[in-house]
Amino acid sequence: MTAINRQILLVSRPQGAASVDNFRLVETPLAPLADGQFRVRNHYLSLDPYMRGRMSDSKSYAKPQPLDEVMIGGAVGEVVESKHRSFAVGDKVVGVFGWQEYGTSDGYGVTKIDDARVPLSAYLGVVGMPGVTAWYGLNRIIAPQAGETIVVSAASGAVGSVVGQLAKLAGCRAVGIAGGPEKCRYAVETLGFDACVDYKAGRLHEDLDSATPNGVDGCFENVGGAVFDTTLARMNAHGRVAVCGMISRYDAKPVPLTQVGVILTQRLVLQGFVVYEHLDIWPDALKQLGELVAQQKLHYRETVALGLDAAPQAFVGMLNGQNFGKQIVKLI
Amino acid sequence: MTAINRQILLVSRPQGAASVDNFRLVETPLAPLADGQFRVRNHYLSLDPYMRGRMSDSKSYAKPQPLDEVMIGGAVGEVVESKHRSFAVGDKVVGVFGWQEYGTSDGYGVTKIDDARVPLSAYLGVVGMPGVTAWYGLNRIIAPQAGETIVVSAASGAVGSVVGQLAKLAGCRAVGIAGGPEKCRYAVETLGFDACVDYKAGRLHEDLDSATPNGVDGCFENVGGAVFDTTLARMNAHGRVAVCGMISRYDAKPVPLTQVGVILTQRLVLQGFVVYEHLDIWPDALKQLGELVAQQKLHYRETVALGLDAAPQAFVGMLNGQNFGKQIVKLI
Repeated sequence: MTAINRQILLVSRPQGAASVDNFRLVETPLAPLADGQFRVRNHYLSLDPYMRGRMSDSKSYAKPQPLDEVMIGGAVGEVVESKHRSFAVGDKVVGVFGWQEYGTSDGYGVTKIDDARVPLSAYLGVVGMPGVTAWYGLNRIIAPQAGETIVVSAASGAVGSVVGQLAKLAGCRAVGIAGGPEKCRYAVETLGFDACVDYKAGRLHEDLDSATPNGVDGCFENVGGAVFDTTLARMNAHGRVAVCGMISRYDAKPVPLTQVGVILTQRLVLQGFVVYEHLDIWPDALKQLGELVAQQKLHYRETVALGLDAAPQAFVGMLNGQNFGKQIVKLI
Repeated sequence: MTAINRQILLVSRPQGAASVDNFRLVETPLAPLADGQFRVRNHYLSLDPYMRGRMSDSKSYAKPQPLDEVMIGGAVGEVVESKHRSFAVGDKVVGVFGWQEYGTSDGYGVTKIDDARVPLSAYLGVVGMPGVTAWYGLNRIIAPQAGETIVVSAASGAVGSVVGQLAKLAGCRAVGIAGGPEKCRYAVETLGFDACVDYKAGRLHEDLDSATPNGVDGCFENVGGAVFDTTLARMNAHGRVAVCGMISRYDAKPVPLTQVGVILTQRLVLQGFVVYEHLDIWPDALKQLGELVAQQKLHYRETVALGLDAAPQAFVGMLNGQNFGKQIVKLI
């Protein structure tokens, strides 16, 4: 086994847009395992929008990613060496192992996974944090009733694609918002959304009106900015808004919200959430999501970047919407 | 008894700011009562910010006030003639009798009131709709815990003054925002707020920071605009925001909200509400509020305009913050 671990560090914080220059690839000798530790060879790294928040040191729910340390992030891999009684060589695991080829763990927050019916990489997406995020926001905040209209932004993404499909399974009208005709076609034709609005087509307001003839009862917001504003203006009385992400504002000055009065006039509930604060629902949610994937009732798509070196560029691309579905890095 | 009823009609909708020209005083003969009706001589009319919303015909929770009809509004008065089995001459009542000297009713939504321990006019304010609004938003949305910091805007107003006093009774730090040193002094010295920030002093951000050293756990929003934005920026994790009013935006273009990301980063709940949709809590709330007033544990202040003719000017003044406490019109 190699004694060298290739790692990507965060070396500077973005001024404006995140860039590949904020990261650096280093090679570090692997330290010997202590008792109670095990070592994981990562197979796939997860790239997620929340990581952009960690790169800044502004007030947020999570501490900033420290500079000159391995970039935080979930990964799936295989145990290759163990001094831990519960993890054996050959076990497949998911955990927060970071942007590196080898993770070292004491088992905290690590889960063994079974790739017989669900592919390994799916545990980073549809049967992982993004899937549970969709499940929580939809079921616990929006609480959809059959016949209601649910709008989700970033509809072809790792979270949005699950929101729309779960909404359809709940008997709702699912309307997506996504960037470009290809993503919209995918949402409708493959994922089964009733409609999907291309926000890049320049007719966001008119197109969303047409796609939601009965207004909007639930909004699952991943994007913020003009997309969020436009959806708010369509909300029906007693609508529910799950505020999950604001990817449009990570890099820039905040885009102001103009439809504030709607909160009052339509008696809305808006709720921000972070899925790691609701660990009690994870087992049930993961069980349901895994079963739906195994039965091919829940579809997903991945954009795969090859090799650790490709992670920074893939991450920046994802922030700009260049990915399609869940963005992962396959380590080679 | 006079056969003439003096009434104020809404005759045009505001383009921008509401003005006295939107109203007209008319004299109308009183129609004879039908069986099941009774007639009320109004003693006090209630003027409330929500009425500004009714003057426009934009999408809202209530239908617009029709043009050329008597302006909607709550009033207290005395039954002076009755063909209704449950209401007798001499009964004191509160109901939605409108801006006129005489209301005619079939009893729907009318409540008999006792002015032995609580003054008649208080049933339009602290022991009426504004009081119940404060009670609902604070107890059911913010749900304050002892030791938390609660911020309320329009702190010396009919709703805000009750919010702050109930928050103090719940063991919280109550911080008001109001316009001008006199209103702020009243909030602290008479109502017992811990602090009150004068938004007209030009240091809203700095002064609110100083007044909320531990951040803000609950926000009761009556104003909107910059006041709301500034409070949002101070919210602690899992803070609750009761969105009750947006008086700053009724007349003007909406003031955009810049602190949208806080909903996510602090996992806030924002909830708009209209107290008439929660009729189940009214009896309990009114009982508690009436008891507190009778025991002089709940203070309130009124601005009284004299005579029906004065109602339009008093209403416009209230929208501009010229009232102090609950704005009423005493009919003479």
